[in-house]
Amino acid sequence: MRTVLRTDSDDVDAYRLLTALVVPRPIAWISSLSADGVGNLAPHSFFSVACADPPIVSFTSVGRKDTLANVMATGEFVVNIASREHLEVINNSSARFAADVDEADALGIAMEPSAHVSTPRVASSPASLECRLHSTHDLGNSVLVLGDVLAITVDPDVMVDGHPEIERLAPLSRLGRDEWGLPPEVTAVPRPRRPEDIT
Amino acid sequence: MRTVLRTDSDDVDAYRLLTALVVPRPIAWISSLSADGVGNLAPHSFFSVACADPPIVSFTSVGRKDTLANVMATGEFVVNIASREHLEVINNSSARFAADVDEADALGIAMEPSAHVSTPRVASSPASLECRLHSTHDLGNSVLVLGDVLAITVDPDVMVDGHPEIERLAPLSRLGRDEWGLPPEVTAVPRPRRPEDIT
Repeated sequence: MRTVLRTDSDDVDAYRLLTALVVPRPIAWISSLSADGVGNLAPHSFFSVACADPPIVSFTSVGRKDTLANVMATGEFVVNIASREHLEVINNSSARFAADVDEADALGIAMEPSAHVSTPRVASSPASLECRLHSTHDLGNSVLVLGDVLAITVDPDVMVDGHPEIERLAPLSRLGRDEWGLPPEVTAVPRPRRPEDIT
Repeated sequence: MRTVLRTDSDDVDAYRLLTALVVPRPIAWISSLSADGVGNLAPHSFFSVACADPPIVSFTSVGRKDTLANVMATGEFVVNIASREHLEVINNSSARFAADVDEADALGIAMEPSAHVSTPRVASSPASLECRLHSTHDLGNSVLVLGDVLAITVDPDVMVDGHPEIERLAPLSRLGRDEWGLPPEVTAVPRPRRPEDIT
């Protein structure tokens, strides 16, 4: 017998439940620039692929924070992929810094120029997605942001035969509350294309 | 020096790269019904939270598949959370069954009634999100689907002090190619609310 939690009940914290159930979530460590050129760096875990072709990614800003303001002002952002080594610093970058403070400066995170957008990327990140704003969608207390992926940059050290290798990427993930997932153990399972392929 | 892959190049398979870099992805094992009442069950890993309040989730259909047709016909769907024990069967449910075949029937997956929608849920799933279609957004070869979460059902066995516990949920995730992530090792890192909290 399941516990049924209606989201229209005042007693149900749907946000808390969803962050504990939609897991593990990949992390977009998003760098952006304000209209005045002040850098911003913040993690977002409501992040996914919105379209396969052309490549479009999505993230949700809960409330109107610096990243959203910057993306709307400049029309671009960079998704930096975070590896296990970034756990402490990416968590620290989630603190509420003032809009005129660059988290990368404050936390000693080295940035470097991106290839096809003006927004810099995290130098130590194994890969980045350089995005141009596609559209924003107001939804309740959140804004869903879509970005066209113009270029993907990858550290050659994580590539094996032209493909990013998961063990080398070692991605972090977000879970509920203050929990993070360490890079998962990987298992390969051949996908059956047709029902007849199922063994 | 990074490898820079422009997504407008014919030599770059952006989809393959994104599925290997936006990882680990949580899995929406989506049950739906056709207009004629035929059940469907298929995994989607382009899945996230689109809005915190009211609770809205999103998934992307790459191409126009049965799930999308059903959701548009009935206006509802259920996201079933998949645990480690479901690895083989969820992978098998990704095979291309004909539209008039119910994957749950074909694969021997027990379904049971949901609490607030007509679409059944996977009986062995530890939690499900009962959703009403919010909107669809055509994007290139894909359709982004948003759903209002009407109710969240949870197996009491995964709850500890009213919160879903990650070790009991034991969620699978999708990685690139035919790789799946096993439930990750968890680490809790207190989140600094203010810059002064950073130690």
